[in-house]
Amino acid sequence: MYIDYNENIQEIIKEYKNAIDKYLDTVLPYEKSMPNKLHEAIRYSVFAGGKRIRPIVTMLCCKMLSGNMDDVLPVAAAIEMIHTYSLIHDDLPAMDNDDFRRGKPSCHKQFGEAIAILAGDALQSKAFEILARAPKTTSIKPDYANLIIECVALAAGNAGMVGGQAMDILSNTALNTEKNISELLLYEIHKRKTAALISAAAKTGAFVARAKISEVNLVEDFGSALGLLFQISDDIMDSTSTMQELGKTPGKDKKDNKLTFVSLFGMDNARKKMSEFLLRTKALLDGFGDKATPLRNLADLLAARVK
Amino acid sequence: MYIDYNENIQEIIKEYKNAIDKYLDTVLPYEKSMPNKLHEAIRYSVFAGGKRIRPIVTMLCCKMLSGNMDDVLPVAAAIEMIHTYSLIHDDLPAMDNDDFRRGKPSCHKQFGEAIAILAGDALQSKAFEILARAPKTTSIKPDYANLIIECVALAAGNAGMVGGQAMDILSNTALNTEKNISELLLYEIHKRKTAALISAAAKTGAFVARAKISEVNLVEDFGSALGLLFQISDDIMDSTSTMQELGKTPGKDKKDNKLTFVSLFGMDNARKKMSEFLLRTKALLDGFGDKATPLRNLADLLAARVK
Repeated sequence: MYIDYNENIQEIIKEYKNAIDKYLDTVLPYEKSMPNKLHEAIRYSVFAGGKRIRPIVTMLCCKMLSGNMDDVLPVAAAIEMIHTYSLIHDDLPAMDNDDFRRGKPSCHKQFGEAIAILAGDALQSKAFEILARAPKTTSIKPDYANLIIECVALAAGNAGMVGGQAMDILSNTALNTEKNISELLLYEIHKRKTAALISAAAKTGAFVARAKISEVNLVEDFGSALGLLFQISDDIMDSTSTMQELGKTPGKDKKDNKLTFVSLFGMDNARKKMSEFLLRTKALLDGFGDKATPLRNLADLLAARVK
Repeated sequence: MYIDYNENIQEIIKEYKNAIDKYLDTVLPYEKSMPNKLHEAIRYSVFAGGKRIRPIVTMLCCKMLSGNMDDVLPVAAAIEMIHTYSLIHDDLPAMDNDDFRRGKPSCHKQFGEAIAILAGDALQSKAFEILARAPKTTSIKPDYANLIIECVALAAGNAGMVGGQAMDILSNTALNTEKNISELLLYEIHKRKTAALISAAAKTGAFVARAKISEVNLVEDFGSALGLLFQISDDIMDSTSTMQELGKTPGKDKKDNKLTFVSLFGMDNARKKMSEFLLRTKALLDGFGDKATPLRNLADLLAARVK
């Protein structure tokens, strides 16, 4: 997979998305094997038309650091499996209760709650299975595989994504408290819920490339800043976009009295914060010169989702 | 941790359970850290008074094969985390809908469904985090850690525990089909739902001990047979035990029209099958001589739960 740094980021995204989807198709359980309904639910959600932002970040970071682009595929796919499992569980009636995802009925609407819970659970296991097997299928060394697994597990678990989702669910009264406390809480929620996995996506790409520690740290911070940029733009879009644009029910944050950048700062200031994060995201790439052009373009693209 | 092979298995269980509980206490998130409620739910379920059968199997197999008993603790703890997460999710209203577990309100009754789903999710991540970090905290080598993670992930996922639970949920009409088909299905469900993780518990104990492949294979088969023995005894106890003895609601299999050894074969034949599996379980240990005495005693103990 060759990148001309002047190439349109849209073209790169398309090429990487194809590679990820092809890889996912080979490693996910076959629909005709037992239990069929579980496997159908897994594939339904994974192939529901996701943008693959996280695995693309993994691939772009690996590429920027001259890593092997065959080695990075299982890592990118594992990150996407973790992300998809989180969407399936987040949509459940007991959680965010959303009937639509990526423009289609959410997993539990299509397959029932029990199968949706299990499909999410199985996707999490599968992600770690793929990562643990990577040293047999790629040139990733066993000690690097362990670093990658630990990084993904930390980002996914109580200190990361799941912890952030729990804080988010428990946060709907936080708007009533003192503003400084709410702001701290908002950043903490978004850092964990969204930025942790995007940061891990970037960092594991650097691990595949066996980058220097100083580079790994920069790439990790870049991922975290990109994650916050992404989440702020999501908060804005929840208030401004249509069902068709979002692929899920708009206006849910407000309805659920959620603590978001829009609810706390207002729309204009949320937009300003997003611009600040776009600058911060790009500044973290300064040391990588031209090789970081695709990542800069990706950050611009995510910010441009907000009209 | 020293075993006198003549020592009472109850004493060994007590000693190992203490070691596992102490280790779990050090690696699980602190209740006073954010998000408190998630961490409380995780600890509530992990320390609800489980028998720790699976991690004890891991430790006994490691010990039998002369493995390091400090090295085995993270592996044993990870297996118990996977088991506990599965109990939390299985008890959810959308799944088996049980209000009690280990004699206490189940996780979702105590903390609500959203936090219960997330507590289970976080426990699964934590299990793999602990395993990936094992080469830093023990003398387990990185390549062995990868083998262990792959083994646990396979046992937990769609081809194992989660797949079995999905088949179990989808099976409640299977009693009406042809008996041979039902029997095949029953074994397939129990092999995946229960035996896969117990087999992985045994196998990973052998991995920690860096056992020969021939020994690993025997131990894996032993774990699978022990798992079926365990599940048949569970099926019988569901029909014969009280709420107090079970710690969960009895008679649920029949009420839910579940495919079990009792519903398919009747009580007398289920007991016969259990005795057959006890013999098979022990026969797989023949080659290990006296060193396998504690594992034989454990198998007897599990069978003796059925009066």
